[in-house]
Amino acid sequence: MNAVGIVVEYNPFHNGHAFHLNASKKAADAEVVIAVMSGNFLQRGEPALVSKWYRTRMALLNGVDIVFELPYRFAVQKAEIFANGAISILDAAGCNAVCFGSESGNLSSFIETIEFLTIQKNQFEENIQRFIETGISYPKAVSHAFHQLTNSESYLDLSKPNNILGIEYIKAIKKQKSSLKALTVARKNADYHDQHFASETIASATSIRKAIFSKKQDQVSIDQFVPIPTKQLLLDYLLKYEGFHQWENYWNYLQFRLLQTSPEELREIYEVEEGLENRLLAAALISGSFHEFMEKIKTKRYTWTRLQRLCVHILTNTKKGQMAGPDDKATYLRLLGMTSKGKEYLNKRKKDLSLPLVSKLSSYKEKEIQLDLKAARIYSLGAANHIAKESMYQEFKQPPILIEKG
Amino acid sequence: MNAVGIVVEYNPFHNGHAFHLNASKKAADAEVVIAVMSGNFLQRGEPALVSKWYRTRMALLNGVDIVFELPYRFAVQKAEIFANGAISILDAAGCNAVCFGSESGNLSSFIETIEFLTIQKNQFEENIQRFIETGISYPKAVSHAFHQLTNSESYLDLSKPNNILGIEYIKAIKKQKSSLKALTVARKNADYHDQHFASETIASATSIRKAIFSKKQDQVSIDQFVPIPTKQLLLDYLLKYEGFHQWENYWNYLQFRLLQTSPEELREIYEVEEGLENRLLAAALISGSFHEFMEKIKTKRYTWTRLQRLCVHILTNTKKGQMAGPDDKATYLRLLGMTSKGKEYLNKRKKDLSLPLVSKLSSYKEKEIQLDLKAARIYSLGAANHIAKESMYQEFKQPPILIEKG
Repeated sequence: MNAVGIVVEYNPFHNGHAFHLNASKKAADAEVVIAVMSGNFLQRGEPALVSKWYRTRMALLNGVDIVFELPYRFAVQKAEIFANGAISILDAAGCNAVCFGSESGNLSSFIETIEFLTIQKNQFEENIQRFIETGISYPKAVSHAFHQLTNSESYLDLSKPNNILGIEYIKAIKKQKSSLKALTVARKNADYHDQHFASETIASATSIRKAIFSKKQDQVSIDQFVPIPTKQLLLDYLLKYEGFHQWENYWNYLQFRLLQTSPEELREIYEVEEGLENRLLAAALISGSFHEFMEKIKTKRYTWTRLQRLCVHILTNTKKGQMAGPDDKATYLRLLGMTSKGKEYLNKRKKDLSLPLVSKLSSYKEKEIQLDLKAARIYSLGAANHIAKESMYQEFKQPPILIEKG
Repeated sequence: MNAVGIVVEYNPFHNGHAFHLNASKKAADAEVVIAVMSGNFLQRGEPALVSKWYRTRMALLNGVDIVFELPYRFAVQKAEIFANGAISILDAAGCNAVCFGSESGNLSSFIETIEFLTIQKNQFEENIQRFIETGISYPKAVSHAFHQLTNSESYLDLSKPNNILGIEYIKAIKKQKSSLKALTVARKNADYHDQHFASETIASATSIRKAIFSKKQDQVSIDQFVPIPTKQLLLDYLLKYEGFHQWENYWNYLQFRLLQTSPEELREIYEVEEGLENRLLAAALISGSFHEFMEKIKTKRYTWTRLQRLCVHILTNTKKGQMAGPDDKATYLRLLGMTSKGKEYLNKRKKDLSLPLVSKLSSYKEKEIQLDLKAARIYSLGAANHIAKESMYQEFKQPPILIEKG
């Protein structure tokens, strides 16, 4: 059974994701689709709209056969570490290829860009350093430095997060000496950051979330942009938990923690760099919402995304040394769900998996997985409904979801 | 100007307090009454019904002339340290006497009990140890051990918290070689722990709070038990902050902190003894309210009060070594409020005060006072009204309250 791996967040699953999933399956000539998916907190440092269990259902009902969780220590990270974790999981799961979406759908532009950057490494890094010294953020410095070096249209646009991720997948495969084949398929219409609906059936997850949280909710329908199972699962979630998760739901907790902690303690948190701790503590005292807080702490130097990730680490109390480094690989395969076909695949391949397969947290005691458990518990505090909150503590005993399909 | 000192919490100020206050003034033949009052968190490990600023107003409008704050490091403590802090403040403020309420109103029973205990020290401590080994709490062991030793009615009943406090005030005066004269006046009617209204005008603060939080609020009036200024200030508070403070308001924060912390980190908190940390962490996962949580963690070994204090320390993130020990004395006089007469007293005595007088937090930078500031900020998170919450961050700049009286 040929398996293609994809790296996803599905926040929520939409028509663009369905397109990518089917195109990936075709491109890899695969029978089975394996997704590695961020858990409850995402790469951009945000709580997912709905829990990983609901997003797993969305995935399985829309064509994914197996969903593994990308552990927190890789998921809430910059592209390099995020990609490294994802690739190590797809590799351990026995995938033949990984297929990611890109603007061009042209793998050679990725290969050429990486080669160019390898050759020009020293000059590139010097340029980046020079731009950083002007006070701009790292991603912007990378993009400027690259542009200065190439002055050409034939390479990738490094200001696009999806291009950066694609590059990192390919670099991770090389670094890990993985036999995974890299593939890319062209994305349909919507730009990652699009805030408005551009196409008739394809919209970015960002614009869909924006519509969901819009106060004019009754006037904006997302129906045309998401498959029916997504729509139904979102409604289910709303009924059960009385709301979706967003940063503002966690603002009280973040503020409380900042009010009670000391600068020294705060400095122990992952990604809190020297000097930032006092800025955070001062802003917590005078902010009435998460958005207000973010506006107060942002500088040219730190991207919004990076500061949001840092806030997630404060919420989960994640210390320096507890997160994955650029050379770390995943140490377990946490199975969130599968279809009958996925189950068949896992039964056949069980002995070939190069990492332990974890079906229930209660049966796996390694230290690394405790961070995923903690993140799930903290995430559950953001649910509006109290009874629902309690049910989410079941994380510990929850078996993988099994969707039986014909 | 002769000054009498009293040690209070006023949660809230009621007729029994008014009686004690006037009787103390008379007993000491004093012109000025100086109260040392617990801040926002009380000795029993509870948030005060209303903030220390409102309770200061109650005190000043009912006959107290000066209110100093008993710092958090003494206030949220067992009787010995609580009393030591309070006495050191009244002594530094230049009081001639301290006057506490007691069942008997008879100082000699305190003196005799202390003398008896000093002589029988070794035997007493042996007895306590033996009772503790049977698994009962320290206060119960003390009471049993004492009873076993005396078999007499002529000594104090050591199962009463107020008697324990009285003993500790007298011991603190001796230990600190203070020139404060100890006085006691008989309390009226209500027992400290009374949950029901016993007299027509005197009720315990416990029963008044119970009535305030009762769901049958409209059927129970506290009017006959509290002076008019108390009634008005409670109504003001309710209008401004949309509710009183109680432990349940802080349950979300306590639970969040327990979910995000590690046993090692929890063990750093003051009064968290070996083994207790795992009990706390396990209970946090399965409790839906503070009361439920307390029911799950309580044992014969730890009193409810002690566990509540420990929960306050978790909320305020107060570490071992940050609280006062039995030999520590206060290091500043934090002035919460005064009447014109109190102001006159302070102006006259300014040079004789043996500790720095702190009128505004912003003008005093010592480390110890930071804990009071932090406690006030955390306390403000328990207010229902968000705008009010913000105004409570003003703690830093708040000047003492001044009540001009004829």
